[in-house]
Amino acid sequence: MATASPVSSEMLTAFLLRLADDHLILGHRLSEWCGHAPMLEEDLAMPNMALDLIGQARSLYQYAGEAEGKGRDEDRLAYVRGERDYVNCLMAERQNGDFAHTMLRQFYFAAFMQPLWQAMMTSTDEHLAGIAAKAEKEVAYHIRHAGEWVVRLGDGSEESTRRMKAAVEALAPYVDELFESDEVSRAVAEAGIAPDPSTLRPAFDAIVGPVFAEAGLDWVETPYGQTGGRQGRHGEALGFLLAELQYMQRTYPGMTW
Amino acid sequence: MATASPVSSEMLTAFLLRLADDHLILGHRLSEWCGHAPMLEEDLAMPNMALDLIGQARSLYQYAGEAEGKGRDEDRLAYVRGERDYVNCLMAERQNGDFAHTMLRQFYFAAFMQPLWQAMMTSTDEHLAGIAAKAEKEVAYHIRHAGEWVVRLGDGSEESTRRMKAAVEALAPYVDELFESDEVSRAVAEAGIAPDPSTLRPAFDAIVGPVFAEAGLDWVETPYGQTGGRQGRHGEALGFLLAELQYMQRTYPGMTW
Repeated sequence: MATASPVSSEMLTAFLLRLADDHLILGHRLSEWCGHAPMLEEDLAMPNMALDLIGQARSLYQYAGEAEGKGRDEDRLAYVRGERDYVNCLMAERQNGDFAHTMLRQFYFAAFMQPLWQAMMTSTDEHLAGIAAKAEKEVAYHIRHAGEWVVRLGDGSEESTRRMKAAVEALAPYVDELFESDEVSRAVAEAGIAPDPSTLRPAFDAIVGPVFAEAGLDWVETPYGQTGGRQGRHGEALGFLLAELQYMQRTYPGMTW
Repeated sequence: MATASPVSSEMLTAFLLRLADDHLILGHRLSEWCGHAPMLEEDLAMPNMALDLIGQARSLYQYAGEAEGKGRDEDRLAYVRGERDYVNCLMAERQNGDFAHTMLRQFYFAAFMQPLWQAMMTSTDEHLAGIAAKAEKEVAYHIRHAGEWVVRLGDGSEESTRRMKAAVEALAPYVDELFESDEVSRAVAEAGIAPDPSTLRPAFDAIVGPVFAEAGLDWVETPYGQTGGRQGRHGEALGFLLAELQYMQRTYPGMTW
């Protein structure tokens, strides 16, 4: 596989790990609903979305391992790094809360990823373009499914509206971090590998806006935006998540199925 | 330290590990309340009881390591055994549920341990007698504190009564296992090290009965008694607990403070 870009392998690896960690951590969170969904249909839909995310994470970790060139395979990257080595956005690691909170988080993340995957379909990096082409179909379903729930709950009963509004409040501090720009994101953008996240906000707003309008929800601005995930500074929730996620590989190092 | 008893080191070690695991696992469960208690006083009381339990576990693991004579220290025994190697009673690993559930579980376990510690104060094993003399003072406080909550909630508001009755129902399947007898318990009993658990039921009932009477609670018999903990067969809850409990030692093997 040839990458035509002049980006350094350090920068490419750092970029790929961010994306991979986002998908692994959010996929794990979503998988916690398995067997606990409020209806049978959702008990299929949520684990299916989780599998999409974890499948995307796997492709990204495999490629990150190749790009890094230090012999770390997908399992080593996914399962045996320290907490401060994970570079997922903070939104991905947040606890599930109730169903409304989980669905809004999923909707936000999908509305962030859809334009990113779409742009990467024409990446100068052919391998990444291939991953994006597959993932773009999957994320379109996530937007539709989670978006329908945002409308249904936001414009539903008094109780469901209250919960969806609470979710909007609770997740507000974690939106801006998605669109942060730094030397890693600028390096891959300049190489034509992926757009800088800071350019994706209008596309995100164009997805979220109509859904919020239909749901009767108001956008919430907060002065308390959180950041740090891309530099490995995480909330308390990630440690507990990693304890579960890593248990098998930590307990039986190098195990395979 | 001399043990005058004719019991094999295998039997003594097995007995000590059961007791140690009971205290470590229940102590960990109780520690999960730290910072989440319904009032400040309880946010001190519950972690303090947890520390008592973990301190008792530590003494027991240290002695178990000596009795086993295979060079495993307290940390190895507490933190790097597999799930099937833990031999705690199932009650200890049950999830906390609400405050009423946690307090009733604590009361039951203390009502089981108090007569056991009291009998072990005159154990033929002097080292264990020393551990028991210290623990017996601590468990007396646990009985008083948890017992007061059983009364206060059981004979409290409509809501608190409902919750305490639900706790009695939920924990009923895990009581009988405490009093099981097998070759391990009989071996240590014959050596005068500790009474067989099967002989402790009247003492347990003598503690629980008056508290239930004052609380207006009825004893619940269930045909669905659970067993298996002493043979390492556990519920789903233990795996998740161990993932958190063992994370540090699994991630940084052999670490010390």
